[in-house]
Amino acid sequence: MIYLDHNGTTPLIDEVRLAMQPFLHDDFGNPSSATPLGIRARDAVDKARERLATCLGADPSEILFTSGGTESNNTVIFGLAARFQGVKDHIVTTAVEHPATMEPCLELMSRGFDVTFVPVDGKGRVDPQDVARALRPSTFLVTVMHANNETGVLMPIREIGALCRERETLFHTDAAQSIGKVPVDVRELNIDFLSVAGHKLYAPKGIGALFVRDGVDMPRLLYGAAQEKGRRAGTENVIFDAAIGAAAETAHKDLPHWPATMKELRDDLEKKLSEGVPGLRLFGDPEHRLPNTLFVGFPDVQGGEVLADVPEIYASTGAACHSDQVKLSHVLAAMGVTPEQGKGAVRLTVGRLNSPEQIQRASDLLVESFQKVSAKKN
Amino acid sequence: MIYLDHNGTTPLIDEVRLAMQPFLHDDFGNPSSATPLGIRARDAVDKARERLATCLGADPSEILFTSGGTESNNTVIFGLAARFQGVKDHIVTTAVEHPATMEPCLELMSRGFDVTFVPVDGKGRVDPQDVARALRPSTFLVTVMHANNETGVLMPIREIGALCRERETLFHTDAAQSIGKVPVDVRELNIDFLSVAGHKLYAPKGIGALFVRDGVDMPRLLYGAAQEKGRRAGTENVIFDAAIGAAAETAHKDLPHWPATMKELRDDLEKKLSEGVPGLRLFGDPEHRLPNTLFVGFPDVQGGEVLADVPEIYASTGAACHSDQVKLSHVLAAMGVTPEQGKGAVRLTVGRLNSPEQIQRASDLLVESFQKVSAKKN
Repeated sequence: MIYLDHNGTTPLIDEVRLAMQPFLHDDFGNPSSATPLGIRARDAVDKARERLATCLGADPSEILFTSGGTESNNTVIFGLAARFQGVKDHIVTTAVEHPATMEPCLELMSRGFDVTFVPVDGKGRVDPQDVARALRPSTFLVTVMHANNETGVLMPIREIGALCRERETLFHTDAAQSIGKVPVDVRELNIDFLSVAGHKLYAPKGIGALFVRDGVDMPRLLYGAAQEKGRRAGTENVIFDAAIGAAAETAHKDLPHWPATMKELRDDLEKKLSEGVPGLRLFGDPEHRLPNTLFVGFPDVQGGEVLADVPEIYASTGAACHSDQVKLSHVLAAMGVTPEQGKGAVRLTVGRLNSPEQIQRASDLLVESFQKVSAKKN
Repeated sequence: MIYLDHNGTTPLIDEVRLAMQPFLHDDFGNPSSATPLGIRARDAVDKARERLATCLGADPSEILFTSGGTESNNTVIFGLAARFQGVKDHIVTTAVEHPATMEPCLELMSRGFDVTFVPVDGKGRVDPQDVARALRPSTFLVTVMHANNETGVLMPIREIGALCRERETLFHTDAAQSIGKVPVDVRELNIDFLSVAGHKLYAPKGIGALFVRDGVDMPRLLYGAAQEKGRRAGTENVIFDAAIGAAAETAHKDLPHWPATMKELRDDLEKKLSEGVPGLRLFGDPEHRLPNTLFVGFPDVQGGEVLADVPEIYASTGAACHSDQVKLSHVLAAMGVTPEQGKGAVRLTVGRLNSPEQIQRASDLLVESFQKVSAKKN
């Protein structure tokens, strides 16, 4: 297996498995319990919270755990909508958000809210001035993803954050794809709310986190007992909290060198594919892009056909979350890509499972497969 | 350690750990991915769904996974409230629900909905006729827990379900405490929605499930990608889905003998404590009660004092979820227990970590501790 789908999901790393171990066995306590078991569980959750806070440049009190990126996004969007109901009714977002942002916004529209979907340019990037122009007195939230899951394009979050602060509008970013790949500092980026997804970060599926800036009222989605200081009800997921804490610590520790390593692998893959496939199209801004993401279009063939011939390679033709149907993704469509230009789209995302040798082999295999599929057409 | 807090949380059993293993290691695929890794993950989720369905007498298509009992309850309550907004505005529930039901109801009241909290009798049980009397044409949901987490009292769910069906009102039950301890068959109990909490069932904290009867529109809380057939967004928690599936299978397999074993342990504990502690009070209906739960009041002392002297015994003075403060629980208060009668309340809940020898030792220790604390008072 050559796994080139790290934006889809990631394996657990050893640090994560190690952090989970005690809580998979004897340390099964409920953090709400005053017993020694409960106290050890609470300590583990607190330690994980500190690790995640350090990774984001936040204070531990600003971090709460959720069941994943989807819940984090839903909490901000629906939580704020409930709070502003009858007072403000407008959200600004982009045309290329993940469904976990897009769908809550669409649902709110059906409940009488108004949403502006700011467009992106041909390279998949939002212009902060378009966001500024979309703001209204009735806007209660701007939500723009940090990095796009398909193109890897990095949005001008710092600038959007600054203008939101100037206009006194709350700003949320979904950082599911960016953490561990580029620096993410909530202060520097002027962020009020930030979503984290564990399984993009070498922690398990089913855990996430939400940063809520100190001084900002916490939007709530889940009501019940007083876990997370009353901000998110539900017995703490001790095992996975420990996991995402360890994943965040590793991401933070490796930030000085790991993104450069990924970039080398990705750039190598890009170079070899460009050489081997005349007319290969690159989707997304090459400058403002995650260091691990290569979203390319093979000319005049379908991406699925190219991949079908190389089962050794694990990659996506679209975003992993909705790959059942072969259709142009909403991201490519928003970039003005035509079905003809986009049908050959393949997303190759490198990560910890890859070696330089694998990249060499993957390039060779993909070029060969492309040639074979092309030859069949002619 | 003598762990007598199984209603608070449970350890993982070997079957659960075994089911999780592959997904903690090589099988890290995203069920939404069409790769072999993704397909294996999807198969694991489907298998878990089948196991849970079998355990509940449901069809697999009627089961979806959530992040826990709290999310399951919130999904039903808030999801239906959003659907019925402007059409129907009334919920019927009880005075002794878990905060994961109580708090969403209170939040809805603050949003203009109306909620009737049906009282319980001195034994902690709801009268179905009180539920019937509370129904209005504007009632869109009746939600009554199957078994109370503190007293272990089993509510007349079948009768309430039948009258809800007769009155064409949707009926939800929180079965967090009952599954694996008493038979739970969704058909027989006339249930439309049922919540499951993994960590009460020897699966991890952070996983749950929701049964939604075929033919009933699914209420939604989390919006995003199309996981769970569009009913619950968020990348599937493959590891914990496998875990709760195995836990449900074990619960189902052991149902013919395990409840009787628990009952023997619990009855033994009850007998020995009653003999050793004159004036020991039993909270909750002795007939309609979970086989593992013993909620007793030590006379003229505080429950916390009795437990403090026997650190070997892990138990709760109140419900585990809100044990930070020594105050009469809302359950005891609703039963008409006075602070004086209730201050000595200790909840002892047996389970898979217990042996007959432990129960003998726990009884001896608790009686000794009670005598010591009592002697100090006089």
